[in-house]
Amino acid sequence: MSAEFAFIDRLRALATHPAARALDDDAAVLKLGGETLILTHDSIAEGVHVRIDTDAVDVAWKLIATNLSDLAAKGAEPLGVLTSHALGDDAWDAAFAEGLRAVLDRYDVPLLGGDTIRLPEGATRVFGCTAIGRATSDPVPARSGARDGDALWVAGSIGDALAGFTLLEAGGADDGPLTAAYLRPRPLLAEGQALAPLASAMMDVSDGLLIDAARLAKASGLAAAIDTATIPVSDAARAVLRGREDELLRWGDDYALLFAAPVECEPPVPAARIGTMVDGQPGTVRLDDAVLNPDAIGGYRH
Amino acid sequence: MSAEFAFIDRLRALATHPAARALDDDAAVLKLGGETLILTHDSIAEGVHVRIDTDAVDVAWKLIATNLSDLAAKGAEPLGVLTSHALGDDAWDAAFAEGLRAVLDRYDVPLLGGDTIRLPEGATRVFGCTAIGRATSDPVPARSGARDGDALWVAGSIGDALAGFTLLEAGGADDGPLTAAYLRPRPLLAEGQALAPLASAMMDVSDGLLIDAARLAKASGLAAAIDTATIPVSDAARAVLRGREDELLRWGDDYALLFAAPVECEPPVPAARIGTMVDGQPGTVRLDDAVLNPDAIGGYRH
Repeated sequence: MSAEFAFIDRLRALATHPAARALDDDAAVLKLGGETLILTHDSIAEGVHVRIDTDAVDVAWKLIATNLSDLAAKGAEPLGVLTSHALGDDAWDAAFAEGLRAVLDRYDVPLLGGDTIRLPEGATRVFGCTAIGRATSDPVPARSGARDGDALWVAGSIGDALAGFTLLEAGGADDGPLTAAYLRPRPLLAEGQALAPLASAMMDVSDGLLIDAARLAKASGLAAAIDTATIPVSDAARAVLRGREDELLRWGDDYALLFAAPVECEPPVPAARIGTMVDGQPGTVRLDDAVLNPDAIGGYRH
Repeated sequence: MSAEFAFIDRLRALATHPAARALDDDAAVLKLGGETLILTHDSIAEGVHVRIDTDAVDVAWKLIATNLSDLAAKGAEPLGVLTSHALGDDAWDAAFAEGLRAVLDRYDVPLLGGDTIRLPEGATRVFGCTAIGRATSDPVPARSGARDGDALWVAGSIGDALAGFTLLEAGGADDGPLTAAYLRPRPLLAEGQALAPLASAMMDVSDGLLIDAARLAKASGLAAAIDTATIPVSDAARAVLRGREDELLRWGDDYALLFAAPVECEPPVPAARIGTMVDGQPGTVRLDDAVLNPDAIGGYRH
């Protein structure tokens, strides 16, 4: 993956505008008139970011939901999305459009535009989404604002997506709450807006709790001390993942919100305090008694 | 291509927000506070939208420039771009980043964010760009505003890109003005901003002059009468394309601006009057003495 990091470093050298946040955040933050725009773009490729046999409805849902999750992490209210669509066969595309309708209706987000492309037969199809939102708090929480002594919290659950993936791999049905957590993640938009005014730092957990905590810590120039026992794992996920507790800390796709806040703040939405931001080698995670170097954490890096 | 149109119709059914302009325009037009945002997204795929052996620098240029051209067509001032990048080999990606730097510097546009993905070995790489701008005129010109009797104009040249492509196909060097017109198109941003206040309708010519004129006419519920002799073709392009004059009307990639304006208006930037908007079957083009049905026009449809 070092080639990818080298390329991102090249982009970072171009992204000198403050709105780009040095490409170190979940989204760009652009002031315009009296408003602050939040802008994010993520693509997914079949067979890479979603299993090749994923239902078109679920591909569409995931594409939109993961981008809305980036808006949620900045406390933004969505204004709309643009999509980029690589055409498949007609039935698949029709189902994809139904998935778009479902997720956009669910979160009351308008489709504003985009494009469609026809790739050569057999090509890996790629689907893109740009989500645009407006900030609801000032300042807009970054990954980098945590302070020494802040409490570290998670809103949402960790591990449901891995448990759902595990069930699917074992041939299970795709209609339970765990498989839904994997196939049709919920962007925590209301939670993000409620938390933004008090969070000193916030991001969504898309690549794994530990790697994402390391990123938040590194951006803030701190370490994160996490108490495993306090991580919010549902009973259902725990039952599926018995003996694999370590894995759920390194698996993404949950789209929970990870945030830091002064210890005296009580979150206005359900959240679990999982630890504390502490002085230390920036980006290290102290998991119970172990000190994890960012490079040793693992997780989905992109 | 009918499958593509069927899918776009499905998207259109979802895109009911006025900002989406029913997916019939070059860009979305979103009011926010006292500003009006212009938003567009287009992807290009290697071997589909650019020749497979195109230099990485030129791929990057074209990706950004074509999206900026959509902003130009709405008279917008660019605020920034987000990109989506499918990784190649390191040298190619480094050259791509240099191309991004060149085009973004040239038009003074910040890189705000985006993502990178790693596709499987051998996959067709896809590159996406979302361009964000702010409107400089109110109303923002649409394709649909032309009125019966308006003059129809082109700012920029038609045919340079086809001539450049022809030279490249014949093994020519890639450093002349015609090949540059094909490889590194110029978005007419200043021209678009100058024209927006007086244009009753405007769009960029990306798919071919005739098909794009038909679209503007159809959106406006009118026909377009065009006098071939008045179409602005450079002497250099004319020399390359001798005997193929018909083709240059059906070839895209020029990124000229096509606009309608009341006959009494004198454009504030160089432009050629190519015809008149007239009453008639919406979307037909009267080319000299011939009446062209939109379905018979040809051009690059997407």
